[in-house]
Amino acid sequence: MTRFSDLDALRAACGTLPAGSAAAEAAVQARQAVLTKPPGSLGQLELLAAWLARWQDRPVPRLDRVSVLVFAGNHGVAAQNVSPYPPAVTAQMVANFAVGGAAISQLARVAGAELRVVEMNGLEPTRDLSREPAMDADGFLRAVETGAGSVAPDTDLLCLGEMGIGNTTVASALCAGLFGGPGAAWAGRGTGLDDEGVARKAAVIDRALRLHETARGDPLEIARRLGGLELAAILGATLEARRLGVPVLLDGFVCTAAAAPLFALDPAALDHARIAHRSAEAGHRALAERLGQEPILDLGLRLGEGSGAALAVPILRASCACHAGMASFAEAGVSDRA
Amino acid sequence: MTRFSDLDALRAACGTLPAGSAAAEAAVQARQAVLTKPPGSLGQLELLAAWLARWQDRPVPRLDRVSVLVFAGNHGVAAQNVSPYPPAVTAQMVANFAVGGAAISQLARVAGAELRVVEMNGLEPTRDLSREPAMDADGFLRAVETGAGSVAPDTDLLCLGEMGIGNTTVASALCAGLFGGPGAAWAGRGTGLDDEGVARKAAVIDRALRLHETARGDPLEIARRLGGLELAAILGATLEARRLGVPVLLDGFVCTAAAAPLFALDPAALDHARIAHRSAEAGHRALAERLGQEPILDLGLRLGEGSGAALAVPILRASCACHAGMASFAEAGVSDRA
Repeated sequence: MTRFSDLDALRAACGTLPAGSAAAEAAVQARQAVLTKPPGSLGQLELLAAWLARWQDRPVPRLDRVSVLVFAGNHGVAAQNVSPYPPAVTAQMVANFAVGGAAISQLARVAGAELRVVEMNGLEPTRDLSREPAMDADGFLRAVETGAGSVAPDTDLLCLGEMGIGNTTVASALCAGLFGGPGAAWAGRGTGLDDEGVARKAAVIDRALRLHETARGDPLEIARRLGGLELAAILGATLEARRLGVPVLLDGFVCTAAAAPLFALDPAALDHARIAHRSAEAGHRALAERLGQEPILDLGLRLGEGSGAALAVPILRASCACHAGMASFAEAGVSDRA
Repeated sequence: MTRFSDLDALRAACGTLPAGSAAAEAAVQARQAVLTKPPGSLGQLELLAAWLARWQDRPVPRLDRVSVLVFAGNHGVAAQNVSPYPPAVTAQMVANFAVGGAAISQLARVAGAELRVVEMNGLEPTRDLSREPAMDADGFLRAVETGAGSVAPDTDLLCLGEMGIGNTTVASALCAGLFGGPGAAWAGRGTGLDDEGVARKAAVIDRALRLHETARGDPLEIARRLGGLELAAILGATLEARRLGVPVLLDGFVCTAAAAPLFALDPAALDHARIAHRSAEAGHRALAERLGQEPILDLGLRLGEGSGAALAVPILRASCACHAGMASFAEAGVSDRA
């Protein structure tokens, strides 16, 4: 079980990351070149197979065990009227996940993935980040550990998601704290705010940014002050997946923001994690660009729950199936190009 | 069995198309509004469910029987050195499809779809469209009928694809003939031409355009002169699917070009057909824009075979699963927005 005695211990763990297997990646590329298709004609499917191979450390990547982990948490900042839905919805949706009534319940099934939902701290809200740090160091570190401890070592692919009324405000504050810009540059409509609501949300974020100004430049301290429990768990799960050789699919805006402090500490820290889907939530495009990533899908979802991550799983299955199952020119007796 | 006595009979069939079920579409939209998610937050998944419902004429769309039809044909214009691969590859790849060694073999399996490959006219090549019409009226109409006759009435979703060495040249000529522009505006690298090859391909197309200038403005005559057998079959299958209430996923550039004469005859003729994936082949972006469509996926493939269409099937399965399987706010006891 991963334990972090203090923020420095976590910072140290973030500084010693495995680099993945260049040999496995090269093996995939060599095989791609002889399969019965024009070179490069499977586009992203070829790149994704190589990516999976590198981080699984297997010359033929596989997706036998795909897991969707959804972390749920509540937020003190929800009291600032930043969401059209009441905080009670977080618990109600967790119950809905369990009985299969939520979008992610269905999407995980279609993806052939196991869905697990983790309630952070009994869904007790964090403190209001516009008035004080969202978490103390102990609360933050325990949430990171909960995330890390939720990753099973034999997972072939980990999809991460979240649920938490108010957490697009948290994610926007976190992005502004990490990458700069005012609240208005990162605040979007979330679950459906009108223009007035978005302006209110941006003002709440600006207040938080002023309050936590001294933490600028320290990504983990930003994550503690301007984050949330489910976001900290996603950070922990992403970090642990790197250690365990598990490739990660990040869902939309909140999930990507949750992992972003790792990138701020080390621009290579998310090389094992792909943004699965570009959310329609306003800040996600800019965040993906900041992280140097092009999301795999762009289907206009803005739901969270890990929905975009689960939706990309069949694309990766297609990638693996082509790589493992296609014949070579020699095997199939097909003439290669002159 | 659909029979067309002459081009006028086919033209008449293209002029009397069912409009789909507005009631089924409205039923989907009404249900979407009460499912446990913020309104619109499933993005394209919501729109695709409504689209499937309209063309299946079912308030709850389903994908029990998904079919991939790949039409294979050869082309006289291949003699003009417009592909790095020899025409023999068409037959070799058809054999590869049958034993499961091709990309589409794998992608159809991942999609849970039945794969059927239809060899057009024993893979005898058409005539060289840069020297004479590719087909006579009888050959063209029989190919359209073969396509139409390949669509099983109980299909829930039809994925269309093609295989044919030289057929991106054919597709480019067809697009130029239908929508205007010189060969260079539509010719791309196909299976991997270098710059010189692309210039040669464009020149071949320009020669063909001059030769068949008199057919401009008559989309079916353009399809006969500047088309190919597998393209004519795709046109026939797309038309028949409309009649049978079967939604269609079109693959990349060649497949979309093959269906484009229907659009040129009636801009609503492809409302039951979605471009599944934006091919990396040069002309596809412009062609999709011409047809007023945004492809579902954009993953850089440029293979044909129906690969992009099969790849989008799990997205539609996700759409159907969410629509049919999610709970409503009332069912789940989740508080709706204030």
